[in-house]
Amino acid sequence: MKEHDMEITLTTTKKEKPKSDQLEFGKVFTDHMFIMDYTEGSGWHDPRIVPYQSITLEPSAMIFHYGQSVFEGMKAYYTDDKDMVLFRPEKNFQRLNKSNDRLCIPEVDIDFALAALKKLIVIDKEWIPDAEGTSLYIRPFIISTEPYLGVSPSSRYKFIIIMSPVGSYYKEGIHPVKIAVEKEFVRAVVGGTGTAKTGGNYASSLKAQKVSEENGYSQVLWLDGVEKKYIEEVGSMNVFFKIDGEVVTPALNGSILDGVTRSSIIEMLEHWNIPVSQRKISMEEVYQAHQEGKLEEAFGTGTAAVISPIGEFFWNDEKLILNEGKTGELSTKLYNTITRIQTGKEEDQLGWITHVEEKVTQE
Amino acid sequence: MKEHDMEITLTTTKKEKPKSDQLEFGKVFTDHMFIMDYTEGSGWHDPRIVPYQSITLEPSAMIFHYGQSVFEGMKAYYTDDKDMVLFRPEKNFQRLNKSNDRLCIPEVDIDFALAALKKLIVIDKEWIPDAEGTSLYIRPFIISTEPYLGVSPSSRYKFIIIMSPVGSYYKEGIHPVKIAVEKEFVRAVVGGTGTAKTGGNYASSLKAQKVSEENGYSQVLWLDGVEKKYIEEVGSMNVFFKIDGEVVTPALNGSILDGVTRSSIIEMLEHWNIPVSQRKISMEEVYQAHQEGKLEEAFGTGTAAVISPIGEFFWNDEKLILNEGKTGELSTKLYNTITRIQTGKEEDQLGWITHVEEKVTQE
Ligand SMILES: Cc1ncc(COP(=O)(O)O)c(C=O)c1O
Ligand SMILES: Cc1ncc(COP(=O)(O)O)c(C=O)c1O
Repeated sequence: MKEHDMEITLTTTKKEKPKSDQLEFGKVFTDHMFIMDYTEGSGWHDPRIVPYQSITLEPSAMIFHYGQSVFEGMKAYYTDDKDMVLFRPEKNFQRLNKSNDRLCIPEVDIDFALAALKKLIVIDKEWIPDAEGTSLYIRPFIISTEPYLGVSPSSRYKFIIIMSPVGSYYKEGIHPVKIAVEKEFVRAVVGGTGTAKTGGNYASSLKAQKVSEENGYSQVLWLDGVEKKYIEEVGSMNVFFKIDGEVVTPALNGSILDGVTRSSIIEMLEHWNIPVSQRKISMEEVYQAHQEGKLEEAFGTGTAAVISPIGEFFWNDEKLILNEGKTGELSTKLYNTITRIQTGKEEDQLGWITHVEEKVTQE
Repeated sequence: MKEHDMEITLTTTKKEKPKSDQLEFGKVFTDHMFIMDYTEGSGWHDPRIVPYQSITLEPSAMIFHYGQSVFEGMKAYYTDDKDMVLFRPEKNFQRLNKSNDRLCIPEVDIDFALAALKKLIVIDKEWIPDAEGTSLYIRPFIISTEPYLGVSPSSRYKFIIIMSPVGSYYKEGIHPVKIAVEKEFVRAVVGGTGTAKTGGNYASSLKAQKVSEENGYSQVLWLDGVEKKYIEEVGSMNVFFKIDGEVVTPALNGSILDGVTRSSIIEMLEHWNIPVSQRKISMEEVYQAHQEGKLEEAFGTGTAAVISPIGEFFWNDEKLILNEGKTGELSTKLYNTITRIQTGKEEDQLGWITHVEEKVTQE
């Protein structure tokens, strides 16, 4: 399947765009979307860009019953000189295929998917907001559509990309969040689907999230499902701790998501010669470090917030206040560096930026 | 909400019904379906029976991304004197609400749901097949429909009931299946969603199921996700063992489904004064019992097959052949009794049968 096989139907009625300062996450979508279908025997076919539109499925479509689905989340930005860029998009499509493998969904051609995405962004480029901190959120996803109630992999799928202009995650500047350590509920366990971006993981997280919000915490910190001892991740973010000069993050153990931001942070720290280790880390260790005054910083990492400094952990009826509830030095430096690279303000030394359009070399 | 608030729109083009001996599970659906909507603030509203039809949703509808959904599975039967009956339907709706609670979905009114279902069955009564072993499979389900990419409980849902005429599970009489004990993958863990009937549990089971089928086994036996030692359930069934005269089934430990057939079997065994215990049981114990010649029978239980005798377990590269691969005495007796109660051939001593239409008492 080549990019030129793609059929493009442009909208005749462009929607009104929200104002840059009134952007909400994931509620308004651009004028177009990408779709392609999969049918057993024929593989992926009929890639097309069409006006943003609703989807019609049989009530027996598998997605409504057995949750066979995967998704990704990434962003497009305008650099200061009006160049459209993506942050490591190949990593997201690679992860999509890893999720596909776990969920028995046929893999997609990464080069083709990326070319299709670029085309879609160019068509809807007016939707990329350009105010400080804003971006175009991109949601590729695959759903199982076979109209059949048997529990087995679907013989039909739809791969869709929709896009939504999103505001700055931090409207009043980067600031710390309060996190409750989850005791009762479990996000994922080794042998389950924790390493995949699939709906079920998020459905299962809603209850713990709701309880923690009612108690004044913005997210939960998940512990491992076996011993309820080791730290996994935070809500929809990976998590890092700076303890006595060293940065520690849970190793990819088979139940946490391999975050694109996580691996970028690790590369950046290594690039800066800051010691960073990926290993098992228990909540008890974090608690002890805090007691001894060695827990210097903690932060979550993810596409949405980039870096989310943590100001408080609630664990075993105790509040651990970090860094006097203020954003730490390393969190700030990482946040600034990554967002500056994403918007072209800082040189892309580690090769993370993909240009949506080929640059025309001028002599 | 009362039954008489329900709007009914009948189809003008009835579909052709499949022949009794050509019924496949879950591929053909009746002429009508039930729908009602939920909107935050208004609760469940607009219950209606409409011609079976497709559903149109925004591509950003939560069900496509975060898997917030629940479902049920039950059956309607014709008794020999042409009475339409359901098997313990209130148990299914109670379980639906338990699943709703775990998934942060608003609960439904059980009496209303049951009344709506009865109405739907009466309208589509010509679709209940009456050949030996056939039935009308009923699939109530709830999907989250809010068009929003945030990870939070949806503010909108659809509750739908669709129905499919299904053939006899055992075309050539009840016969044993071969089961592979799963070593790598995990279905659910305490603190997760294993006790709920939600899509993610089934999506996560596909890979293990696929591998076991490739190896010639029809289902997998799930072990607990913590120690990979204790028996949980089989594919979409609960599991029972008869060891040295006693029937043992895993206790409801927080990660297995509370099957309606499971609890009916337990009640029936108690009614017959056959010793039955719900407790932890390890695969090692089953293996030992087999070695000592004390493993008399094993069987799965569920709405689809009622009783599915197990003829072989594959565990640690060994094949445990049970009862010479033949259906055991107890399995046969349970299967016959329950199917005879379901079709009105045997007296309903335990009060399991619900009549779809009020019986008109004749003097
Ligand atoms: C469960 C979970 N963990 C971690 C992350 C962070 O991953 P990334 O940095 O690729 O956005 C996300 C968000 O995608 C997530 O959903
Ligand atoms: C995971 C699982 N376990 C057990 C069962 C058996 O439950 P029931 O007897 O209510 O059909 C089912 C089927 O519904 C199931 O999906």
